[in-house]
Amino acid sequence: MKQLILVRHGESEWNKLNLFTGWTDVDLTETGRKEAYEAGKLLKAEGYRPQFCFTSYLKRAVRTLNQVLEAMDMDYLPVEKSWRLNEKSYGAIQGLNKADTAKKYGDDQVLLWRRSFDVQPPALDMHDERSPRMDPRYAELSDSEIPLTESLKDTIARLMPYYKEVILPSFDKYDTVLVVAHGNSLRGIVKELRGMSNEEIIKFNIPTAVPYVFTFDDQMKLVSDEFLGDPEVIAAKMQSVANQGKSK
Amino acid sequence: MKQLILVRHGESEWNKLNLFTGWTDVDLTETGRKEAYEAGKLLKAEGYRPQFCFTSYLKRAVRTLNQVLEAMDMDYLPVEKSWRLNEKSYGAIQGLNKADTAKKYGDDQVLLWRRSFDVQPPALDMHDERSPRMDPRYAELSDSEIPLTESLKDTIARLMPYYKEVILPSFDKYDTVLVVAHGNSLRGIVKELRGMSNEEIIKFNIPTAVPYVFTFDDQMKLVSDEFLGDPEVIAAKMQSVANQGKSK
Repeated sequence: MKQLILVRHGESEWNKLNLFTGWTDVDLTETGRKEAYEAGKLLKAEGYRPQFCFTSYLKRAVRTLNQVLEAMDMDYLPVEKSWRLNEKSYGAIQGLNKADTAKKYGDDQVLLWRRSFDVQPPALDMHDERSPRMDPRYAELSDSEIPLTESLKDTIARLMPYYKEVILPSFDKYDTVLVVAHGNSLRGIVKELRGMSNEEIIKFNIPTAVPYVFTFDDQMKLVSDEFLGDPEVIAAKMQSVANQGKSK
Repeated sequence: MKQLILVRHGESEWNKLNLFTGWTDVDLTETGRKEAYEAGKLLKAEGYRPQFCFTSYLKRAVRTLNQVLEAMDMDYLPVEKSWRLNEKSYGAIQGLNKADTAKKYGDDQVLLWRRSFDVQPPALDMHDERSPRMDPRYAELSDSEIPLTESLKDTIARLMPYYKEVILPSFDKYDTVLVVAHGNSLRGIVKELRGMSNEEIIKFNIPTAVPYVFTFDDQMKLVSDEFLGDPEVIAAKMQSVANQGKSK
């Protein structure tokens, strides 16, 4: 039996302010850290023992993982970080308020930017100070790899090589693997594993800091998937994510 | 120019209680976390930009590194963890009070266990619950690799292959490398780099959470070494480490 555990980072400063975040490297709130720690306590209490961890280059994911590992008392676990697990780039609307943007452009346009499969938000200018091309952590990436905006389709396209060539092959060595990342990069994995259509994955909201466990047989055939924790809390968290970006 | 930055973990719960710690996996105190965060702020203020990090399997080192990375705003850096960077094993005296042990066995005997080059403390029984052989994180190590007690000489002997085959070669790719570890594993690196005798390294006390920067030319010839920060604070920290384990 093999298990892949997905965890979306806890509440970030910009989730709280209702701003488009994307590749902006914002911290967790105190609530976000606590959520993350609770996720780790839950994993430990239910007996999960990951052997390898993956996360993104963004601190809200790294710090969520750190909290999870502290709570599990497994700080020694190996961790690999990759930009391919980063959140979807929101391009030029990064840093804008979701509700204000919805008022200005209309709920429908914002919903397209947030929840369509292949519509990109307006692109960042290559020389915009918010551009990842200005950030030394991405210095090893080619210009074509660094996104200036992304649709969900684009996010999944840059995630998939890493998922297929690095994360999945890690099960050759490990039985239990933990991935701490972002709403849209995790959607890519969920879509692939559950064989969801483009429409289905758009409607699927991953709650923050709730362990989502995929169980496989030894041939890596998916047997089951389940969120850990109180179903009412999980449903409320999913609804809260779905409600972001509405003008009222 | 290349730079190796060594940082000893901040104050741990057992430093505070004055217990022999060794491979026991104890947490940082709040003071220890703050010291570590300050070390990161100092590195950032002085313009250090590490590209790769190494740490041990022990949470007081991992959490020190996490604090340093948070303070530097560089959570995205790659980190490799190795048991070879762990603290010296104190064998069967792990968990005993340093002052009580000194009263019972005499200051001289305890000083030998703490500060001789090649005298080992009494060994743990292989089936002792404190033995690393009971700990899943060391499952991949052979019995001969897992220490039941160590002298400083033993600690350096198991550290050196990792230092020479992994840490030093990382400079082929990176200019600045950060190692967060423990008093005795770091002594091994300092002894090697500064060509110290066995007697010299025993007397050399590495202060907690003070960045210790070694600068090399492009042929990896050592040019200089310096502790960063206020010299008076550093001297006081070194004296505090030297005073541990005295009966009064």
